[in-house]
Amino acid sequence: MSRERLVVIGGDAAGMSAAAQARRRRAVGDLQIVALERGRYTSYSACGIPYWIAGDVSAMDHLIARSPEEFGRADIDVRTGHEAIGVDTGAGEVTVRGPSGEQRVGYDQLMIATGARPIRPDLPGINTDGVYGVQTLSDGEAVQQALAAGPKRAVVVGAGYIGLELAEALVRRGLQVTVVEAAEQPMSTVDPDIGARIADVVRGIGIDLRLGEPVKAIEGEDRVRAVVTTGGTVPADMVVLGLGVAPETALAAAAGIACGASNGVATKATMESVSHHRVWSAGDCVESHHRVSHRGVNIALGTHANKQGRIAGTNIGGGYATFPGVVGTAVTKICELEIARTGLSSREATGIGLQIVTVSVDSTTRAGYFPGAQPITTKIIAERGTGRLLGAQIVGREGAAKRIDVLATALWNDMTVGELQNVDLSYAPPFAPTWDPVLIAARKAADAVGG
Amino acid sequence: MSRERLVVIGGDAAGMSAAAQARRRRAVGDLQIVALERGRYTSYSACGIPYWIAGDVSAMDHLIARSPEEFGRADIDVRTGHEAIGVDTGAGEVTVRGPSGEQRVGYDQLMIATGARPIRPDLPGINTDGVYGVQTLSDGEAVQQALAAGPKRAVVVGAGYIGLELAEALVRRGLQVTVVEAAEQPMSTVDPDIGARIADVVRGIGIDLRLGEPVKAIEGEDRVRAVVTTGGTVPADMVVLGLGVAPETALAAAAGIACGASNGVATKATMESVSHHRVWSAGDCVESHHRVSHRGVNIALGTHANKQGRIAGTNIGGGYATFPGVVGTAVTKICELEIARTGLSSREATGIGLQIVTVSVDSTTRAGYFPGAQPITTKIIAERGTGRLLGAQIVGREGAAKRIDVLATALWNDMTVGELQNVDLSYAPPFAPTWDPVLIAARKAADAVGG
Repeated sequence: MSRERLVVIGGDAAGMSAAAQARRRRAVGDLQIVALERGRYTSYSACGIPYWIAGDVSAMDHLIARSPEEFGRADIDVRTGHEAIGVDTGAGEVTVRGPSGEQRVGYDQLMIATGARPIRPDLPGINTDGVYGVQTLSDGEAVQQALAAGPKRAVVVGAGYIGLELAEALVRRGLQVTVVEAAEQPMSTVDPDIGARIADVVRGIGIDLRLGEPVKAIEGEDRVRAVVTTGGTVPADMVVLGLGVAPETALAAAAGIACGASNGVATKATMESVSHHRVWSAGDCVESHHRVSHRGVNIALGTHANKQGRIAGTNIGGGYATFPGVVGTAVTKICELEIARTGLSSREATGIGLQIVTVSVDSTTRAGYFPGAQPITTKIIAERGTGRLLGAQIVGREGAAKRIDVLATALWNDMTVGELQNVDLSYAPPFAPTWDPVLIAARKAADAVGG
Repeated sequence: MSRERLVVIGGDAAGMSAAAQARRRRAVGDLQIVALERGRYTSYSACGIPYWIAGDVSAMDHLIARSPEEFGRADIDVRTGHEAIGVDTGAGEVTVRGPSGEQRVGYDQLMIATGARPIRPDLPGINTDGVYGVQTLSDGEAVQQALAAGPKRAVVVGAGYIGLELAEALVRRGLQVTVVEAAEQPMSTVDPDIGARIADVVRGIGIDLRLGEPVKAIEGEDRVRAVVTTGGTVPADMVVLGLGVAPETALAAAAGIACGASNGVATKATMESVSHHRVWSAGDCVESHHRVSHRGVNIALGTHANKQGRIAGTNIGGGYATFPGVVGTAVTKICELEIARTGLSSREATGIGLQIVTVSVDSTTRAGYFPGAQPITTKIIAERGTGRLLGAQIVGREGAAKRIDVLATALWNDMTVGELQNVDLSYAPPFAPTWDPVLIAARKAADAVGG
């Protein structure tokens, strides 16, 4: 019997989901599994870091789903502090740098789950002490340590999801916070009108949100002292980078493994590389099929990483599973404002040549007369003429955002707004008005697409 | 010009939605609209009555969406206190009994929106003073009046949605409450295991829930004194009937207007009677197409009434719209337990000859480590072999129940559980675990349907 070896590069959601699923299907006598993780932690929730910094989550341990020791007990050999620095697909070997030097590890199956790297602009002073990212638990530890020293003023660079989540966390930790953003709106994944609502609540908790102000430099000698933007100089005791992430595919690209237009590793629906047999990829480093735009996209999100990793692991384990793509669903909560989106934004839709109509409906999360009814604004983007649902965005208070899932499921099934307006959604006064906000928006969109 | 007349029988959600929509499309010079309502109120939320009794809703007025006077200003002639007692489809006339006697009102278009009547079992003593229904606002007023007299003990007959909502309301008003139910579980629209969870919370707030105890009689002379069941005699100062409703179609049936197997008025998808041209029906009195069982069903629910009424009104108004059916979605909240269902229950599915598998998954509404994460149990019923989603049920705490809408939308689109397991639902720690409970349940169902 010749035992196969699976080498997993990257010990977070995608890699370890693949490892766990492959192990479930193939016993240790049949498949050896080695997971290489350059950091110290496995399977953690990077998306939970802002809440740990804010204090909602009391300890870092809570963000770790499964430790290296736990994987060890499942016969998965996790090697933390080991970084893959080269892949030789011809020889089937990975070059690994670990505490005791470099070695080469052979593989029969290779899982590339190298994740994403935070975007770090090439600015003067970017490497000054006191500039932090928040991509890994170690990054989070560094921020916590910085906060322990009692800084007064923080500047967050970037007003996307991560930037705003962090800005709120820092306000709650007592800092005076400025967010600087190059674009004219926060959270460019939503339409400008929805972005304006977000700007209002962000400013409402005292954050100095500066839009249309690209950063030019970070000033300081020993430590950060200020951030210089096109609009002026903002004093800062610490700077947090929240500019989003890019797929970490340097290793794959250097090995000749094909990447797509989004720079993510290009795979088939099975998550096997389009260019290399028995090489798999999943998670933040991979390219996904967008079911609405039919483009390749790279979306860094734990839920995709888990699904894709599991699918790769099923296939490595001798089963058969495919990843059907994404529709671009995302959700967050900033200062009690729930924000969600799915599908294409207006700009994305027109950007690929679609003729659109948009409607926006203000309603309530419960029957208007029911205690605790909260405001909810539902925006729908549909194709003019055909009525095809293209995207949706929701902002509101408690109970608003998760309604995006109905719209995501409708998009998934290529529904038109005319079809969507009559779907049998649940109704009772504590849960919805007689017409759920989603249905009202669909109805108004159905009226608009023909006109 | 010959002006048409639309006569609407029934002034609640379905009838008045039709009237309002027809008016939007046809001016008063083209279409006269007369709405006959035997009670005093129009367009109210009957489903809000338990919350008014509980005190969540402070005044009855809040349950009224639109008054007769408001309709009057929109040129809709609402005649409250007028009961339609006969329809002559040959002559195109309705016989109406009003405060000043009987009259005949001619129609060109007739809208039958007679709603539902509460099931009132033919028991000894059923007409004793102190026995209440809760179908209309007037019923609700009578219960409020009874409560003002300070009763100590109430018996609710029936442990369905309405019965349990009322039982909770009465507990919150300080009464000692017994619920007697003939079946072996509360809420027979869900599976027994889910029913058991409901029974636990109902008993947890001190309600004496008696299952498998049909009522035999109501005792009392001037007023109710006790309810006699097969299990014994339960003292009661008041009795509330919560046995559900049946379509109120006596008038339609007497006029020869066709009803379906569910006893609801049988209509085409346009909501026009299958037997009579220019006769329309909608709401609690109508039969709907169930998209999963492909049977005719009668479901009394405000959201259907509104949609169907609007569709009838669109067609009466010269437009074109169709009602695509229902999937049996329902939601309620009993003692902080959120309960939702869609599609077929296990019994309904096997009752029409389907081979099923069921899976049940316990999870949390948010990431497990996130503050406020609440328990949620998601049950999925799927067809063995094909994996076709047939139904789902959810019980849990805050944030649980509305997830049923994803399953309803999936059912609407004939999805299999295999397809559902990878849908791009929103994820962030304040809103869901990395794998949303719906996806976990779908995944486990996908694993089970083949086995």
